[in-house]
Amino acid sequence: MFDILLTSDEQGPLYIQLYRHIRGLIQRGAIPDGTKLPSIRALSQQIHFSKNTIETAYQMLIEEGYVISKPRSGLYVVAPLLLQTNTNQHAFNLSQNTNEKALQSPYAPIDFSLLETDSESFPLQAWKACLNESFNYNSCRIHQYGDYKGEYALRLQIAHYLKQSRGVTCSPEQILVGTGMSNSLHLLSKLIGQSARVAFEKNAIAQVGDLFSQNGYTVVSFPLNENLSITEIMPGNIDAVYVTPSHRPSGNHLSYAIRQELIHWAYHNQSHIIEDDYDGEFRHAGKTIPSLQGLDPHGVVIYIGTFSKAFTPALRMNYMVLPPQLLPKLQSMERTLSSPSRLDQLAMALFMERGHWYRHIRKMRNTYRKKHERMLQLIHTHLGSHVQIESGGAGLHIELTVNRTCSAEELKELAHAKGVRVYSSQQPELVPNNKKPKIYLGFGGITIKDMERGIPLLKEAWIR
Amino acid sequence: MFDILLTSDEQGPLYIQLYRHIRGLIQRGAIPDGTKLPSIRALSQQIHFSKNTIETAYQMLIEEGYVISKPRSGLYVVAPLLLQTNTNQHAFNLSQNTNEKALQSPYAPIDFSLLETDSESFPLQAWKACLNESFNYNSCRIHQYGDYKGEYALRLQIAHYLKQSRGVTCSPEQILVGTGMSNSLHLLSKLIGQSARVAFEKNAIAQVGDLFSQNGYTVVSFPLNENLSITEIMPGNIDAVYVTPSHRPSGNHLSYAIRQELIHWAYHNQSHIIEDDYDGEFRHAGKTIPSLQGLDPHGVVIYIGTFSKAFTPALRMNYMVLPPQLLPKLQSMERTLSSPSRLDQLAMALFMERGHWYRHIRKMRNTYRKKHERMLQLIHTHLGSHVQIESGGAGLHIELTVNRTCSAEELKELAHAKGVRVYSSQQPELVPNNKKPKIYLGFGGITIKDMERGIPLLKEAWIR
Repeated sequence: MFDILLTSDEQGPLYIQLYRHIRGLIQRGAIPDGTKLPSIRALSQQIHFSKNTIETAYQMLIEEGYVISKPRSGLYVVAPLLLQTNTNQHAFNLSQNTNEKALQSPYAPIDFSLLETDSESFPLQAWKACLNESFNYNSCRIHQYGDYKGEYALRLQIAHYLKQSRGVTCSPEQILVGTGMSNSLHLLSKLIGQSARVAFEKNAIAQVGDLFSQNGYTVVSFPLNENLSITEIMPGNIDAVYVTPSHRPSGNHLSYAIRQELIHWAYHNQSHIIEDDYDGEFRHAGKTIPSLQGLDPHGVVIYIGTFSKAFTPALRMNYMVLPPQLLPKLQSMERTLSSPSRLDQLAMALFMERGHWYRHIRKMRNTYRKKHERMLQLIHTHLGSHVQIESGGAGLHIELTVNRTCSAEELKELAHAKGVRVYSSQQPELVPNNKKPKIYLGFGGITIKDMERGIPLLKEAWIR
Repeated sequence: MFDILLTSDEQGPLYIQLYRHIRGLIQRGAIPDGTKLPSIRALSQQIHFSKNTIETAYQMLIEEGYVISKPRSGLYVVAPLLLQTNTNQHAFNLSQNTNEKALQSPYAPIDFSLLETDSESFPLQAWKACLNESFNYNSCRIHQYGDYKGEYALRLQIAHYLKQSRGVTCSPEQILVGTGMSNSLHLLSKLIGQSARVAFEKNAIAQVGDLFSQNGYTVVSFPLNENLSITEIMPGNIDAVYVTPSHRPSGNHLSYAIRQELIHWAYHNQSHIIEDDYDGEFRHAGKTIPSLQGLDPHGVVIYIGTFSKAFTPALRMNYMVLPPQLLPKLQSMERTLSSPSRLDQLAMALFMERGHWYRHIRKMRNTYRKKHERMLQLIHTHLGSHVQIESGGAGLHIELTVNRTCSAEELKELAHAKGVRVYSSQQPELVPNNKKPKIYLGFGGITIKDMERGIPLLKEAWIR
C-alpha cells in the first residue's frame, strides 16, 4: 500500500490528477518497481474518488507502460529501467535481472513512428481561437447534420490551397471531406467498382496496401521504372493505379515524361490513378513537386490529401478531389458518407482563411527539413556503409536497406530489444524475394534528442 | 447594383459578416426580389474582399434559399414570399405571380426533419468549457492518432452511462466509438460477414434500410407480431435481425416474452440481433424500456447508440457495444476503423464525468415530452379523423397513416407546395402494397411555433 495525497492546487479532471500523481511517484522511485497497486475498490474507499475515476487513471498508466496487469492477480508498477520489456508477459519477473542490456535501455521506448507528427509545433493558440470563434458564429447550426460532402466554407479553402500549393485544379464541388484514408478507400470502392484491382509500385509502403486489401481491393504490384514504358510493366485488368508521386518507394519522384505516360495509359485503359499526396508538402531538397492531378486533362486522377501529416492526426480529417464524372454517383450515397465534426471543419475553414494554415505549413517545412537533415547525418555517422538510404528527400520517413542476411522482422526485434521501435513493409506481395531487408524510420513525431539516442542504439542492435 | 457598407463593429470571419449583411438587406427588402447580385469579380473590386470570401458568402445565401443561381446568367435574390418554390428552376419567373397560395406560404420552409435536434437546448457553455479544458490537459497527445477503438476515458464513461440508463451490460473493451450509423454498418459487415441477410420489421423507417443496402447487406422484411412466434415469421438464412426495441414501426414496444424469444431464436439460429437504440432515451409516456442487450446471456446482441439525437449530430459521434466473441476479429482491422476527433472524444468523456451529460439528457426528456404532447394535440385538432397516429410515445418522430387513396410521394408534394417538408419510407421492400400512405413527422428540430404553423398547413394541403 502507499499513500495518495493530492494537493489542492492540482488542476484538471480528477482522473488526470490521479494519473499524474501516481506517475510522478513511480518516476521519482517513491513507489518501487514491483509494487502491487491497491485495487480500484480499496483505493476508492481510501481517497473517496469514484471507481470510474480510478479505473481511467489506472488505464492511462497501463497504456503508457508504467503499470502492467497480471491476470488474476492485479496491477504492478514497472520501474523505468525495465520498460523496454513491457510487452513481455513476464516483464515483472525480470525485476531482479540487472544485466547490462537492461541498464542501458532508455526509460520509454524510442519510437520512429510513421504516424505521429511533431508534438511541439502544433499551433495551439491559433487553433483554439478559431475553434471558439467558429463555435460562436455557428452555434445556431449545431443541431443539423450539415453538408454530407463537408462544409462548403472548408471545401472552398481546400480548393484554393490545393491550387496554390499543389497545382491541383478543382472546384469545391469536387472535394469530399472525410475521416481518413480507410474511409476514403471504402467510399472509392463504391465509385470505381467493388473488389477493384489496384496496381501498386513494388516496395510501396506496407500499411497502405493493407488498407486497400481490408477494404476489398485486390492489390497487385508493378515495377515502375524510368526505362520501361507503362504499357510494358502494367499487369492486365487494372481498375486503378496507386501512386505517391512526391514520395515514391524508391525515393525518387516521377519524371514529367513518366507522369504524362501514366495519365495517358490510364485514360486509354479506362483505369483511374489514385494519387496519395499525404506528405507532398514536405520536400526537403529543392521545390515541392506539383500534383499529378494538375497534369490530367481527362479526369482520371483521384487526388487524396490529409490534415494528419501537416496538422494533426487527432482531428481525423482528410479529403479527396474527385474527377467530375464520378460526382453524379455520389448523390445516391449521401447518407453513407462519413465526415468529421462540423465544428472542426468550420474551425479549419477559418484557420485557413486567416492564413494560419499557410504559416503553419511554412513552419513545419522548416522543422521537418531540420529533422530530416539530422536523421541523415546520424545514419551516416553511426550506420555508415552498413545501410543504404533510399530516401529521396521528401516526406516524413526514411527508408533504409540494411546489409544483413536476415529478415526485416528480425531487425525489428533486435531494435526492440534495445528499446527502439522501427517499421517494415508487411504486405508480402509488395516485397521482392531474396532481397536485403528494408526498414522504415519515421521522423515526424520523434524529437531530435530521441533520434540522437535512437540511431546509435540501432547500430548496437544491428551491427556489432 | 447595390451598395455594401460593412460597419466596423461587425465580428467574425469576413464571409460571415458579408453573408449576414446581404441577408439583412434581403430580409428588410432593401434588395428587392429579382435583383441580380454583382459578380464575384465585380464585388471583389468594389469592396476589396477576396473572391474566396465573397464566393463563400454567396454560397451560404444560395444554400439557405435567399439567392438562386440561373445558369449562364448569374445570382438573383429571391424575396421571402416566393421561397416555398425555391427548389423549382423557374422560381425566379414567379416573381410576378402573387396568387393567394404564395402569399399564405411562410417565409422559410417548415421542416418536420427526422435528423435535426432541438436547436435551443444545446449546452453551449458547458461543452465549450469541457472542450477547452480537455484541450489544455491533452495538448501533449495531439500529435498521435490515439486508440483506434476510441479514447479509453470516453469508452469507460459510455459503459457506465449505458449500464445506469439503458441496462446495457458491457466493459469498455466492448465499446467502439465511431463516426455514424453508416460507418458502424460498414464495419459490422466485416464482422458478421459480407453481404449478410438482415431481417427488418415491415414498415421500419426507410433511411436505415437504405443504409444497410448501400453497405452491401441484403434487406428482407418480416411481420413482427405478438401473436406469432418468431420461428413462424422469420425468413430463412438470416444473418442478423435489425430492431429498434424502444421505437418500433408500429409504435408499441416489444413485450418481455417476445424479446426473450427473439434472443433465444437468434442464439439457436447463429444469427445476430442489431439493436439500434438511437432514441431509446426519449420515451414520453411511462418509463424508458431497458435495452435488449441487457437480457442477452449468449452475446448475440450488437447494441448501437448515438450522440446525434440526445446531443448533436454536428459531432458525428456514435458507438457500438460488441459481444465479446466478435472482439478478436477487430484486432486485424484496427487501421480501418474510423473514429471522430480525439479532442471531441476527450471533451465528451469530461462532459460525462462532470455530470453535464446526465443533466442534459434530463432536460432534453422534458423538452421532447412537451414537443411530443403539442404535436399530438395539434394533429388531433387539425387533422382529426383524417389520420391515424401510429406513435407509441417514444422517440423524436410521429408516424401518421393518412386516410387518402394516394401515395406518400403525392402527400409529400402537396405538403411541399404549402412550404412544409414531411417524410416517408422509401425502401419498397419495407412498405406493404395497397395500404394507405404513411408519413413521418420529426419533431426534434422544429420549434413549437413552427409546429403550430405547419400542422394547419398540412390540413390545407391534404384534406380540403
